[in-house]
Amino acid sequence: MALIVQKYGGSSVGTLDRIHHVADRVIKTKQQGHDVVIVVSAMYGETDRLIQLASAVSQDYDPREYDVLISTGEQISMALLSMALNAKSYPARSFTGSQIGIHTDNTHTKARIREVKTEIIQRELQQGRIVVIAGFQGINEHGDITTLGRGGSDTTAVAIAAALKAQECQIYTDVDGVYTTDPHLLPEARLLSQISFEEMLEMASLGAKVLQMRSVELASKHGMPIRVLSTFSDGLGTLVTFEDKIMDKRLVAGIAFSREEAIVSLSGLPRQTGVEGHILDKVSQANIEIDMIAQSAAAQDTLDFTFTVHRREHPKALKIVEELANELGALSVKTNSKVAKLSLVGIGMRSHAGVASTMFKALGKAGIPIQMITTSEIKISVVIDEAHLEQSVKVVHQAFELDKPRTISGKQIYIE
Amino acid sequence: MALIVQKYGGSSVGTLDRIHHVADRVIKTKQQGHDVVIVVSAMYGETDRLIQLASAVSQDYDPREYDVLISTGEQISMALLSMALNAKSYPARSFTGSQIGIHTDNTHTKARIREVKTEIIQRELQQGRIVVIAGFQGINEHGDITTLGRGGSDTTAVAIAAALKAQECQIYTDVDGVYTTDPHLLPEARLLSQISFEEMLEMASLGAKVLQMRSVELASKHGMPIRVLSTFSDGLGTLVTFEDKIMDKRLVAGIAFSREEAIVSLSGLPRQTGVEGHILDKVSQANIEIDMIAQSAAAQDTLDFTFTVHRREHPKALKIVEELANELGALSVKTNSKVAKLSLVGIGMRSHAGVASTMFKALGKAGIPIQMITTSEIKISVVIDEAHLEQSVKVVHQAFELDKPRTISGKQIYIE
Repeated sequence: MALIVQKYGGSSVGTLDRIHHVADRVIKTKQQGHDVVIVVSAMYGETDRLIQLASAVSQDYDPREYDVLISTGEQISMALLSMALNAKSYPARSFTGSQIGIHTDNTHTKARIREVKTEIIQRELQQGRIVVIAGFQGINEHGDITTLGRGGSDTTAVAIAAALKAQECQIYTDVDGVYTTDPHLLPEARLLSQISFEEMLEMASLGAKVLQMRSVELASKHGMPIRVLSTFSDGLGTLVTFEDKIMDKRLVAGIAFSREEAIVSLSGLPRQTGVEGHILDKVSQANIEIDMIAQSAAAQDTLDFTFTVHRREHPKALKIVEELANELGALSVKTNSKVAKLSLVGIGMRSHAGVASTMFKALGKAGIPIQMITTSEIKISVVIDEAHLEQSVKVVHQAFELDKPRTISGKQIYIE
Repeated sequence: MALIVQKYGGSSVGTLDRIHHVADRVIKTKQQGHDVVIVVSAMYGETDRLIQLASAVSQDYDPREYDVLISTGEQISMALLSMALNAKSYPARSFTGSQIGIHTDNTHTKARIREVKTEIIQRELQQGRIVVIAGFQGINEHGDITTLGRGGSDTTAVAIAAALKAQECQIYTDVDGVYTTDPHLLPEARLLSQISFEEMLEMASLGAKVLQMRSVELASKHGMPIRVLSTFSDGLGTLVTFEDKIMDKRLVAGIAFSREEAIVSLSGLPRQTGVEGHILDKVSQANIEIDMIAQSAAAQDTLDFTFTVHRREHPKALKIVEELANELGALSVKTNSKVAKLSLVGIGMRSHAGVASTMFKALGKAGIPIQMITTSEIKISVVIDEAHLEQSVKVVHQAFELDKPRTISGKQIYIE
């Protein structure tokens, strides 16, 4: 018998039928003899409905009141799920973030959890009840309702699991788990049975929208294993855990990518101390978020400076860079607003120098030009023409044999 | 400068336009230099939407969870109104019943208020803010969310006004105030500028659905004047206050009525000690609520026993009474399922014996047979054929000259 925290997202509780389905899943876990704590998101569409109401009242709405409004979405879900469980003769009680004592800082709409009280949860579990808690919300030191920002329910679940020292935090979504790459783009993408926290963070930040990044950070900090599973099918999903618990030390975990990128490059920029900082200042003063940055020496006295931004920021960014080119005496400005980023992620590449060359060779062989490269300890990112994205993912996936199961001596690995 | 509590019902905050309109009304009161505390209901339709969700999950839903669910309706309204006020540069903050400290007993879905804390309200008022509070909800000793039952927002407003010793509790609705009778039925019905608590209670209990009865009881207990006004038009509305503050001692305040009644009568029932209790026991064991009861001596050894029930209970009640007639040896059972109740209400009738005779004569002159009569200190009720209701209200209204303004020496009375 263990303590399991399960989180169900908006699409998992999107209709009353689905809420009953979730109740059945919860009951199954309870029947296995576990104590169960459930965290729920708002029903799919409810949060958008509330945001529309807020926007219609005032474009410049008060953040404190926004949180009061928006937090009702999870309160509705938790009550309905609790009713469904009680109707199936499994005693359950629902609690808001404020009732449980999920204490946050004062940053309305994007609050961070400071502390999770466990007294009420423990009391209810001791009485044999299933505890259903509203995700995404908490209370600040003034007793005001706060929300954690979009996707915050994952973070709530991990924070509660950590506070309770649960065995596992299970995040139920509408996908089977974490794949080597997006299966919509590449049908041979394969479900990972395990992935490390670090790899998951890189995958998450690169556009694999399975888990909210903050929740992975928090889980990593507290050593709380997360299991990503589907609400709508059976299967063990993907376990996100510490590197040393991963039994299969494959070089590469998967390929993340993002579209809608644009690249801007200053070529033949005279070398000058602090010139890079000056460029970035100008761009960020215009509230443009920069993603990748690369700098290479073109010649002894000049350098090339390249960065990427979201495609919608491209016109604004290009204008600034053209002004800078004049000011700084650059030879030329090169740009492409239809590029994509592809990133190879894997803890194994730390100690294996050959990963980059395997990747570049695979792209080269397919005739795909690389427009930019950046690397970090467990990630290599390249910028390519968006038209080449699908083919690029395919050839890199093949080059690392990601379609083949991670095996040790020929046997499929599951951790339990 | 005074402290005013204002309550806005579901139709007053039913759309975003209306919420802005309410905000403008609140601001007008604030501009007059008053401190303002607002109590809001759920947006029209929202509570029904939530109840439908609950019923769809389970016919036999858990009352604790029902309250968790249903209380979100007011939370949405209060946040939106507060946003609207802030957007118009009038600082406002919204609070749930639990945040303010509206303590209730443990009766979920029909809780009663025990205590209202005023610390937070006082603090916010001192800082110049408008305080917006969710009606209809509170918190029990376990920290669980409770609701007061339909119409409970009126009670919340009165309880808060009493706790704060406000000058007046203003209940904004979609009618101009309390009329001498329903203006939809009788166009010459006249708006009352004042009515006593006792008269209002009789009017409310008799189907004039302007104010929730419990709120009038509570106001009477605490001596808190209630003013009923329209959100959608200007005017002073109706002040509900103590009898000795009513400046115009008219005999009769108004005529209340209810349709959908049914009458059942046992005739020629042999006299027997406790027979009335026996009849009522049988009826209430079947969960049928009895409204009026009248008993008259038909002859020395027998009596007639008559009562009314809601029309939907009529078949059930009739069956029980027919069994009782056999058991008790009554001569006959008389019944009519298409009757209405008409009640004349007024504190003045206490000391004026002529009221009943004026009423009966008016009905008699119009050829309307009276099927049953009951009286209380400030009320006379008659049961008539429903087909005669409209005409009955008309002739009684005329007989007491209710269409003419309450005047003292020819001048219209307002209390301010």
